[in-house]
Amino acid sequence: MAVYTDVSFEDLEECLKAYDVGTPKSFKGIAEGVENSNFFLQTDRGSFVVTLYEKRVSAGDLPFFLGLMEHLAQHGVSCPQPVRNKNGRQWAMLNGRPAAILTYLDGVSLRRPEVAQCAEAGSALAKLHEAGSGFALQRPNALSLQGWRKLADTTLAKADSVSKGLANAISTSLAQIERDWPHGLPAGVIHADLFPDNVLFMSGKISGLIDFYFACNDAYAYDLAIMLNAWCFEPDGAYNITKSRALVSSYRQHRALGADEIAALPLLARGAALRFLLTRLHDWLNPDPMALVRPKDPREFAKKLRFHMQIKSPAEYGL
Amino acid sequence: MAVYTDVSFEDLEECLKAYDVGTPKSFKGIAEGVENSNFFLQTDRGSFVVTLYEKRVSAGDLPFFLGLMEHLAQHGVSCPQPVRNKNGRQWAMLNGRPAAILTYLDGVSLRRPEVAQCAEAGSALAKLHEAGSGFALQRPNALSLQGWRKLADTTLAKADSVSKGLANAISTSLAQIERDWPHGLPAGVIHADLFPDNVLFMSGKISGLIDFYFACNDAYAYDLAIMLNAWCFEPDGAYNITKSRALVSSYRQHRALGADEIAALPLLARGAALRFLLTRLHDWLNPDPMALVRPKDPREFAKKLRFHMQIKSPAEYGL
Repeated sequence: MAVYTDVSFEDLEECLKAYDVGTPKSFKGIAEGVENSNFFLQTDRGSFVVTLYEKRVSAGDLPFFLGLMEHLAQHGVSCPQPVRNKNGRQWAMLNGRPAAILTYLDGVSLRRPEVAQCAEAGSALAKLHEAGSGFALQRPNALSLQGWRKLADTTLAKADSVSKGLANAISTSLAQIERDWPHGLPAGVIHADLFPDNVLFMSGKISGLIDFYFACNDAYAYDLAIMLNAWCFEPDGAYNITKSRALVSSYRQHRALGADEIAALPLLARGAALRFLLTRLHDWLNPDPMALVRPKDPREFAKKLRFHMQIKSPAEYGL
Repeated sequence: MAVYTDVSFEDLEECLKAYDVGTPKSFKGIAEGVENSNFFLQTDRGSFVVTLYEKRVSAGDLPFFLGLMEHLAQHGVSCPQPVRNKNGRQWAMLNGRPAAILTYLDGVSLRRPEVAQCAEAGSALAKLHEAGSGFALQRPNALSLQGWRKLADTTLAKADSVSKGLANAISTSLAQIERDWPHGLPAGVIHADLFPDNVLFMSGKISGLIDFYFACNDAYAYDLAIMLNAWCFEPDGAYNITKSRALVSSYRQHRALGADEIAALPLLARGAALRFLLTRLHDWLNPDPMALVRPKDPREFAKKLRFHMQIKSPAEYGL
């Protein structure tokens, strides 16, 4: 959860003059996302989320993120829509931060998704990949190979203070991943953070996808590898091959996976585990005193990385 | 803001089986209150707040707090209402904490209330005092004279690390307040924390009062003195006598103030400033690592205490 910037109702009211969203009935900080400050706004015309983009989100990337959400919705993906202000702009300044007003989606995110929900989520990812294919803007993945090397350089020295042997595990796996990383896989717009927190369900069906602030251009199969990490491990650390099989086969019903993509999955899954291990390790070692958020334990992903490092064939993921 | 205890939707769903509140549409942690964990719950039947009572709220006090909210609503005060479960109980256990489901009130709290809003708030306090008069349960004020002495004993040694001279200012004023504290003033149920955060407005009128978790039995005029501290100082520290006059005279339109209550106001205002100074100082010196809340700066109330210490007559408050 996070509310980094405090916004008074009076400041909001001033900002709303440029919008046509009705009369406010309720306005509260909410525990949503870890990168930005989010507020729930109800007016006589509906419900909205007001997002203030904090330092990790560059204003230069807003046309990509907000434009993508509009593009995806036009192509059948349910996701928050930026409300354009009276001048047609997708965002404004509020308390010194770029801020957008987005439509609010009903639905709840699940902590312990079942097999059927993993299957739903796999379909949703494939539909997102298809829907994003015509989007005109591009954004490189800042958290791919080069980003990992940078994060490793700044965290390795202290990694063993978090868990003995962690520095060595990171160096070894990063070297192997850098050496073997697949290039030329089918690529396009990916969500890059489709954890269960970012998928809303209503009565067992997906009502929407949220939090597109890591979206970028990268290999589609890497997005799927992120989901194997995020959806298919049990709380005790065991990999649930039934969930994994359900997720991937539902994905394939909406977008075919090439032989190269399937063959690359173990390596992509290692890369995905390393990516979340490194960002969590960085946040763990450098807690932001202004962040009203508890850093997540990096060791969860160290364990997942170890699991993927010993995978010998995509069949072990249930494919 | 605060969400101390994380509640998954799955845990909530289990708890809701004992309630008749409809099918959940949305469930999110909200930045409300500093003592408890609060969640916004929307169902097909309406909006609710789910409150988990953390360590500072004793389950033994819940019949007082929740019963008071029911009593006040029956006597015309708009405030959240505990939803009774299928067994008629006002609260249940959720994630190891006592928890209640309360109705959600529309309205926004103001950061910089104007004179007219101070007047509205003064009326609301008087109506609350009148409405609470027939409430059967009692709760002593744990944060009155004896509580202050205890807090002073645990904070004085480190007080000067926060602001030079603070320890001496606290000792001197506490001794004077203890010596002169008025006894036998008209008393009954007071809110004891009616800051602008706890008053909701809609189109300039009060739509509800919230956060009754400091409510107790004490002098009515002490509750008014808390409001002078909470509503009548400008951000630069200046006391706004126009706001103060508006607040007190609106109060008096709904509940008469006796000569003894008026005479006691300067001392009560010192006590109120000291109470918030001491609790903030305590939280500042002992930050809770699990609290997703920034401790409030105690120096704001040190400044207010100094102001009240030099008041010679209630006339200086605009009376």
